[in-house]
Amino acid sequence: MISRQSARLVADTPAIADAHFRAEAEPYDPRERPGGYLNLGTAENRLLWDVLRARLGELGAFTAWTEDVARYAPLHGTPVLRERIAALLSATCRTPLDPGHLVVISGATGALDALATALCDPGEAIVVPAPYYGAFDTDLGGRSGARLLPAPLPAATGFRLTAAAVADALDAARRAGITVRAVALSSPSNPVGEVHPPGVLAELLRVARQYDVDLISDEIYAHAVFGERPFTSALDPAVNPDWAERTHLVWGFAKDFALPGLKTGVLHTRNPHVLAATRALAYFAPVSTATQDLFARLLAEPAWVEGFLAEGRRRLAASYRHTAGLLDAHGLPYVPAEAGFSVWLDLRAWLRGPGSPGPDEGFAAEERLRRALFDTARVSILPGGAFRAPEPGWFRLCHTLDAPLVAEAVRRVAGLLGRPADGPPGPALAHVPATPAPADLPPNGGRP
Amino acid sequence: MISRQSARLVADTPAIADAHFRAEAEPYDPRERPGGYLNLGTAENRLLWDVLRARLGELGAFTAWTEDVARYAPLHGTPVLRERIAALLSATCRTPLDPGHLVVISGATGALDALATALCDPGEAIVVPAPYYGAFDTDLGGRSGARLLPAPLPAATGFRLTAAAVADALDAARRAGITVRAVALSSPSNPVGEVHPPGVLAELLRVARQYDVDLISDEIYAHAVFGERPFTSALDPAVNPDWAERTHLVWGFAKDFALPGLKTGVLHTRNPHVLAATRALAYFAPVSTATQDLFARLLAEPAWVEGFLAEGRRRLAASYRHTAGLLDAHGLPYVPAEAGFSVWLDLRAWLRGPGSPGPDEGFAAEERLRRALFDTARVSILPGGAFRAPEPGWFRLCHTLDAPLVAEAVRRVAGLLGRPADGPPGPALAHVPATPAPADLPPNGGRP
Ligand SMILES: Cc1ncc(COP(=O)(O)O)c(C=O)c1O
Ligand SMILES: Cc1ncc(COP(=O)(O)O)c(C=O)c1O
Repeated sequence: MISRQSARLVADTPAIADAHFRAEAEPYDPRERPGGYLNLGTAENRLLWDVLRARLGELGAFTAWTEDVARYAPLHGTPVLRERIAALLSATCRTPLDPGHLVVISGATGALDALATALCDPGEAIVVPAPYYGAFDTDLGGRSGARLLPAPLPAATGFRLTAAAVADALDAARRAGITVRAVALSSPSNPVGEVHPPGVLAELLRVARQYDVDLISDEIYAHAVFGERPFTSALDPAVNPDWAERTHLVWGFAKDFALPGLKTGVLHTRNPHVLAATRALAYFAPVSTATQDLFARLLAEPAWVEGFLAEGRRRLAASYRHTAGLLDAHGLPYVPAEAGFSVWLDLRAWLRGPGSPGPDEGFAAEERLRRALFDTARVSILPGGAFRAPEPGWFRLCHTLDAPLVAEAVRRVAGLLGRPADGPPGPALAHVPATPAPADLPPNGGRP
Repeated sequence: MISRQSARLVADTPAIADAHFRAEAEPYDPRERPGGYLNLGTAENRLLWDVLRARLGELGAFTAWTEDVARYAPLHGTPVLRERIAALLSATCRTPLDPGHLVVISGATGALDALATALCDPGEAIVVPAPYYGAFDTDLGGRSGARLLPAPLPAATGFRLTAAAVADALDAARRAGITVRAVALSSPSNPVGEVHPPGVLAELLRVARQYDVDLISDEIYAHAVFGERPFTSALDPAVNPDWAERTHLVWGFAKDFALPGLKTGVLHTRNPHVLAATRALAYFAPVSTATQDLFARLLAEPAWVEGFLAEGRRRLAASYRHTAGLLDAHGLPYVPAEAGFSVWLDLRAWLRGPGSPGPDEGFAAEERLRRALFDTARVSILPGGAFRAPEPGWFRLCHTLDAPLVAEAVRRVAGLLGRPADGPPGPALAHVPATPAPADLPPNGGRP
């Protein structure tokens, strides 16, 4: 009836979007709908709408349109938008990015799809440190036909990135006769919220080079950093002295600019073949010129952009601290975050019934807990299984919405978890070790 | 270095876009750049900018945004936009369209890609009456891996659509053991500008049914009709009593609303499997919510829409008549058009050097003529080869720009063609037969 390639895609479509729209259809309101849903499942930043709204009003928009906005433009992005993104990201990445090496495309999703399709033929593989942003399965594999090989990170250290885990997965693939084309990761990481230390990134790049595979670094959260450690791009010459032509960046306006609905992403590559291929693919998923015009205007004044991003970081930090305080108060353990919109909750203790379940049973128990949280507590948070977590019991809670909503959600989660019907709560877990100190790279930044 | 699937795409990328951007970079201006390029190669409607600009100003835009516009929305289109498109197209197609059967996606291009990928696995085929919109090769085949089989239409009747030509191609494919999944066409036709008669469409649908293949009807020019014959959709029950579940429509805002840069397309299907597959594919190429909001506003007042489309048709008709008059005056033959933005020029006589060239040589001569027109006359028009024309010597000239520009272009083309260096002009050709009268369907509309 339909093609095999599309049937596979339909079968793999994640159920997460469903929870999002169900929760959004009946949202909690203290007066109007006190029993409504609290959606902490979606990584949307709702902390900045007042600032954005004012700015968009100021910019005037449509009335300032010229006919150029109506007309066909290069399908890999207008020159002015690519120039302004290049200026912004050159500072972020601490290396000059050429606007000619950028491809603007429909969402970071589109950028990931284009890169995976440029690099992989069906059946070839991409290694991804796990847990990872669950939509990578679809974004990187759905249309390209690539298969994703998780490189499980150790729970004992809060799933912090290690190059060794990636090397192990590359080794295993090699032994199994699987052709691996790339390693992909989100940096800073989603769901864990780690800002990857430069030393680890440098090591990861050495591994990529050793195994002759490309690196896809999804840096969509590059400006959403509020911890002590500053962000390091995979393209920073301090960590990437010799693999830059094989390192491809993804970024977008969904997170740092809090405008996810506008689905505007971008990729950067210095490899002329990958550039030609991703440009050809952008033809199928270009961004409306009207939206490109809007973003070009938003980026026009560097001083405004800097202030906006700084305000975003301040609000994120406050939201995170507030959430962490609530979790502490309720005795809910989590991995301390340094970036991103979420907290990675450790609910392993609440999966344990009488006797320790095996891992499969464990993921079934995790899914039961998710459903109870959704149906009974009416809180939508996503289970670790949706992020290919190496073990069951972890949940991602997004806190980037009004503080009272977060408070109500944490209260409900804690209330439900405390109930004996869900089995006796396990021993209160100690927090996983705090992030190691940032100085794990030689003082000269690793340059020879 | 890059995947085979993307290398194929890069190799197939049409050179047409190149001519467009080269011509646009040095545009003709009577005073500033009298030797500049005239771009009549791109099907952009530049006749309506004054009306649109005023309306967009009136609508206020960003200042009227709610936070919803910023947030993630269903990736197959916002409910309000799908409702308004359904209302518009229900009238156009003379059958009620359900907003739930619509998928909004990045351009008609995205809609074609999604339908082809939903229907075909790599190597399976789509039959397309030729000449056809040249980008169909990329749009329908580039990502899906489907191969396109042209069904050549006869030059003697100005390449008017016949169901017999399609049946012949389906037969030939069957004999060759090729699996054909669909027939695709643009209706009204691009490049020829024919409004397909209801009788022909009814017959085409009978052929599709007989061969058990789907129909993809690209009706992006549905409202760009200025001839005597009214438009009939492939979904009109008068022509499609029993194949509606296997008929899939494509439409968009690029032509009828003259906003091609905004890359907003839509597809309609009543088949639940194709719907699920194309929705899953729309995930990779969604339209910015800001742009969807803009179009929802543009469609909000049916009276304005009706007036706008009527004004569009009036201006198109005037532009066409003006162009036809110029061609007549210069003795350049063409197929009379009833719709669309272009005239299909018959320059066969100017290909003939001493002795009649074979078809391959003929297409080489056609390409030489295109280059001479581009480089010497500095007029960009596209050759028939770019539309898989069954024989060399035809060119598509788009006339939807300022009348004096069209006049200058036709003057230059005629001037170049007249020059003996290009070989002696052949005998002036009589026009191909005019469109048959519209009454080729029984008065009851073909209903039993
Ligand atoms: C790591 C990562 N990459 C990509 C995306 C998707 O971005 P977009 O909405 O621009 O397609 C997300 C959104 O959640 C994300 O977290
Ligand atoms: C028949 C046809 N289909 C599709 C398209 C592409 O439309 P869009 O720009 O919305 O992708 C065109 C544009 O020329 C066209 O003529």
